[in-house]
Amino acid sequence: MNCELQNILDKTASDCRKMTRNGKQATYIPELAKTDPGLFSLSATTVDGATFSAGDSGALFSMQSIAKIISLSFSLEMFGYDYVFARVGMEPCSEPFNSIMKLEMTSSIPLNPFINSGAIVIAGIMAERFGRGAIDHLLEFAWKMAGRKRRLCVNERVFMSENSTADRNRALAYFMHSIGTLSAVDKSLILYFKLCSIYADTNDLSVMGGTLANAGLNPITGERVLSRETACTVTGLMSVCGLYDESGEFAVKVGVPAKSGVSGGIICAVPGKMGLAVFSPLLDAGGNSVAGMETLSRLSREIKLRGM
Amino acid sequence: MNCELQNILDKTASDCRKMTRNGKQATYIPELAKTDPGLFSLSATTVDGATFSAGDSGALFSMQSIAKIISLSFSLEMFGYDYVFARVGMEPCSEPFNSIMKLEMTSSIPLNPFINSGAIVIAGIMAERFGRGAIDHLLEFAWKMAGRKRRLCVNERVFMSENSTADRNRALAYFMHSIGTLSAVDKSLILYFKLCSIYADTNDLSVMGGTLANAGLNPITGERVLSRETACTVTGLMSVCGLYDESGEFAVKVGVPAKSGVSGGIICAVPGKMGLAVFSPLLDAGGNSVAGMETLSRLSREIKLRGM
Amino acid sequence: MNCELQNILDKTASDCRKMTRNGKQATYIPELAKTDPGLFSLSATTVDGATFSAGDSGALFSMQSIAKIISLSFSLEMFGYDYVFARVGMEPCSEPFNSIMKLEMTSSIPLNPFINSGAIVIAGIMAERFGRGAIDHLLEFAWKMAGRKRRLCVNERVFMSENSTADRNRALAYFMHSIGTLSAVDKSLILYFKLCSIYADTNDLSVMGGTLANAGLNPITGERVLSRETACTVTGLMSVCGLYDESGEFAVKVGVPAKSGVSGGIICAVPGKMGLAVFSPLLDAGGNSVAGMETLSRLSREIKLRGM
Amino acid sequence: MNCELQNILDKTASDCRKMTRNGKQATYIPELAKTDPGLFSLSATTVDGATFSAGDSGALFSMQSIAKIISLSFSLEMFGYDYVFARVGMEPCSEPFNSIMKLEMTSSIPLNPFINSGAIVIAGIMAERFGRGAIDHLLEFAWKMAGRKRRLCVNERVFMSENSTADRNRALAYFMHSIGTLSAVDKSLILYFKLCSIYADTNDLSVMGGTLANAGLNPITGERVLSRETACTVTGLMSVCGLYDESGEFAVKVGVPAKSGVSGGIICAVPGKMGLAVFSPLLDAGGNSVAGMETLSRLSREIKLRGM
Repeated sequence: MNCELQNILDKTASDCRKMTRNGKQATYIPELAKTDPGLFSLSATTVDGATFSAGDSGALFSMQSIAKIISLSFSLEMFGYDYVFARVGMEPCSEPFNSIMKLEMTSSIPLNPFINSGAIVIAGIMAERFGRGAIDHLLEFAWKMAGRKRRLCVNERVFMSENSTADRNRALAYFMHSIGTLSAVDKSLILYFKLCSIYADTNDLSVMGGTLANAGLNPITGERVLSRETACTVTGLMSVCGLYDESGEFAVKVGVPAKSGVSGGIICAVPGKMGLAVFSPLLDAGGNSVAGMETLSRLSREIKLRGM
Repeated sequence: MNCELQNILDKTASDCRKMTRNGKQATYIPELAKTDPGLFSLSATTVDGATFSAGDSGALFSMQSIAKIISLSFSLEMFGYDYVFARVGMEPCSEPFNSIMKLEMTSSIPLNPFINSGAIVIAGIMAERFGRGAIDHLLEFAWKMAGRKRRLCVNERVFMSENSTADRNRALAYFMHSIGTLSAVDKSLILYFKLCSIYADTNDLSVMGGTLANAGLNPITGERVLSRETACTVTGLMSVCGLYDESGEFAVKVGVPAKSGVSGGIICAVPGKMGLAVFSPLLDAGGNSVAGMETLSRLSREIKLRGM
Repeated sequence: MNCELQNILDKTASDCRKMTRNGKQATYIPELAKTDPGLFSLSATTVDGATFSAGDSGALFSMQSIAKIISLSFSLEMFGYDYVFARVGMEPCSEPFNSIMKLEMTSSIPLNPFINSGAIVIAGIMAERFGRGAIDHLLEFAWKMAGRKRRLCVNERVFMSENSTADRNRALAYFMHSIGTLSAVDKSLILYFKLCSIYADTNDLSVMGGTLANAGLNPITGERVLSRETACTVTGLMSVCGLYDESGEFAVKVGVPAKSGVSGGIICAVPGKMGLAVFSPLLDAGGNSVAGMETLSRLSREIKLRGM
Repeated sequence: MNCELQNILDKTASDCRKMTRNGKQATYIPELAKTDPGLFSLSATTVDGATFSAGDSGALFSMQSIAKIISLSFSLEMFGYDYVFARVGMEPCSEPFNSIMKLEMTSSIPLNPFINSGAIVIAGIMAERFGRGAIDHLLEFAWKMAGRKRRLCVNERVFMSENSTADRNRALAYFMHSIGTLSAVDKSLILYFKLCSIYADTNDLSVMGGTLANAGLNPITGERVLSRETACTVTGLMSVCGLYDESGEFAVKVGVPAKSGVSGGIICAVPGKMGLAVFSPLLDAGGNSVAGMETLSRLSREIKLRGM
């Protein structure tokens, strides 16, 4: 069966990497525009610890919004469900990921931790408690999720690039500060940009997905990284709002918890089965990897990821 | 194992029916206010055809928004994915279920088929093609999903009650007509209200959920009622926007595709496993059954509905 | 000086009627599309009772939104300032004239009596009190403002046309009924459409404007038609929201209280000086008469309508 | 007649200063909270150069939003109508003065130069051209409008206070930078805060209002400070959006071009007649001086400011 899974990944990678010719690379963060648009990689980690890869599987890229999984998981572990969800909601958002409108209409907390406002609030919670050391705690936690020590780290060039082209995020942060939803504007933003700039490959991400899919137990190291409750909470949110404005489309076409990033990565946690990660930099209008979406659509059908 | 499932349902029903004292009954449709608020029932139908019930399992209630599953499934089977999703979107909505705002801001199609505007558009598609006979086609389709002939039918008193207290839905329909999104206002609304007024009990609904969970094959009759693709599409949408403004919370707490109605019912389709249905009329602020939500939360943990 | 005013009107009419080649006729009400687009007329009535006209000054057209002045003035006289402004606000609106959005966001009364929602509420107040006789009371009041008996009357073809193409207004009315802002949907709409369908020429309108400009005293008949307070209230509102989404532009370019309609008319009340009315059916993007706007801009400069 | 005007001002001041007990002082800028809430002053400057005062007429206060008149007038004189209105609109806004929502919905320029976003854009235009020297040019222009050399100047404590409590304005500025509507965030904000912090008394403001009312000619010095066209443009905008969310109410109750500030001042330009200024720090819910609104309401009736 494992041999079969490798074959399916190879075949899907071979078919779908051709799709890397479609879509557009993210350019609003100048460093992202420098990635080779032809890269494609696909990895899987089953809950019993087997790992598979196809394509350019060692290719590194910045996690961008995928890192929101790390900060959400860690803050749930550190501060608990009630504390976190007093600061951020858990409902999908029909406005764009960087929208201020809903915050202004309600003067309330961000709708969920995966839109930018919500992720900045989560970064703010971390920054409040750990100050400048927050990023180290988050990296250490990410290492546990990915099962590798000192591999995942912040890419400073990407961080600088994020930090210098962040008008919308600054607008969000100042707005939230004005309504009392965010305490420290600059510290929160710096941590948020550092998180976005963590470099990983699809192997790393598939193990992280596998940890979530395995109810919090890292399938490679056997370590309990997060509680079953946190794994359920995080995957629950991934299933409703993990793919920006295409979360519904992804639920229809793929049907498993996932989170995408504008660098072209998508991570999936298929509960009780496996973690999956795909990377291909060219994006559709919704900001999701074109080849990544197609890859996961096919895999969903071929290996019945939904369970039916 | 089946014996065990019955025990779990009995225990959960016994614990959770006490919660029927909390919440508020829907009153905006006068007929709904007449239901006995103390009713509670819970049913399950596994994909291998076993059925279980606990509580007042023969109690009938109007399906309300749960019926949106019938019309969506049927229209996908009849008209195809592309036709349907040219008329309605597939993304969750962060505005209330009866909101006009987003339609006005975008002059576009409704965000998804489970908010009122989207369900009225789906009813409109049916009414365009089948005229006054549309409700009969839908009932026949519902009978196949539920595996019972001539059981589910429109409750005329509820229909009259819906039809006479429908300002917001009329506003939505006229608005959509003005922007060319809906063709026939009155016919669409009448069909929509009839759908909402279909009476069923949790046994019926759990079989319908079982049909979706079994990839379109009715687990009792063995009949293929809908294609695997339609089952995936409908359950995908249920997972992102099935519980009004609490779809995210439900994904976190329960984590399976579901659809609720203001009469107090919730239907679940646990892919590859079972259909579930619960009924208890008292609602939380989001319009979902208080006892129903708690029941499904517990079952999700106890019988690992998520698969982890 | 009166001779001079006639000369200025003649000159301006002659220059500006050429502009009737620009703009687009309103077509959403089919009857409006039948008007000769080349018509142009201009009239003035000074507060000392002198009247002047130029162009096709006997040309009749439906008042459309200009009639909102009649219903607002009459309801202020009948029900008083406090009663009226408990049902409708007095602030300009930055959304389009037929918007529902703001009502949904606030669940409150319409922003002002000149947007459609507000005018429907004013019609509703009248319909509540006077039933089917409301239109007769309004016509009688309009006769007094215009100083002519039995001249202004409802054009039935226009009324039928309005009534049958009124989706947006119906949506507004049903929405307001749902939030308790409007009592009777159909009666309010019928009265509203009848008001819009009152036929007048620029002579009639300039006398109506003159009555407002003369603090409520009809400058032709000498009759007190409305109180000074009502005249101030109505002209105050005309100055902030009389020209749809171009009220600010009009204040900048012309600088006097005015109200426009989609049939191509604009009425002005220059306090203490005169009433003015212009008619030319071709409209700009904001729904205001192209030639009418230019005519009033020039007159504002040439006869110092602002007082400076 | 001048003697009569002095009597009316004295009487009105005496009656209305009692109203200073109502309302709330602005506190979001800490320095504003330090003003004596019992202060009241009222001044008038007729277009023929007579000046009148009543109350604490030498009391100085920061101009706050009233200073938007200076920057708008100056930028119109310097850059012209077309240049300015390519960067900012001229329509009233039904959202609060510091709203981002409309900018997000339209990705367009601010609705008008008197809401914060628009005023920051105007400051940005100045900062682009004049750099750090912009404030000196503006002060010099303000001296000409007020007819006094080296009297009006920036209060540094107020400026520091504004600058350090400016989250909403920073959010607006970063947002506008992100959509290309504003070039330099910090420079624009600093100039904007300096403008808000200019100190003046009602004598100064009434002369400034008189300059606008006199079509741009300072009624004291006889100097042409701005063109008739600029005076018409600025007073036109004052009449539709000078009093935040109470611009319509002010048009109804007072009916002349005006601009208010949260320090409690209101300036009026009564075209062809006089400038008026009133100051009393306690504000109503809309951010306008309670006693100031009442004072101007009374004067409007007693000296027929509207011209009728």
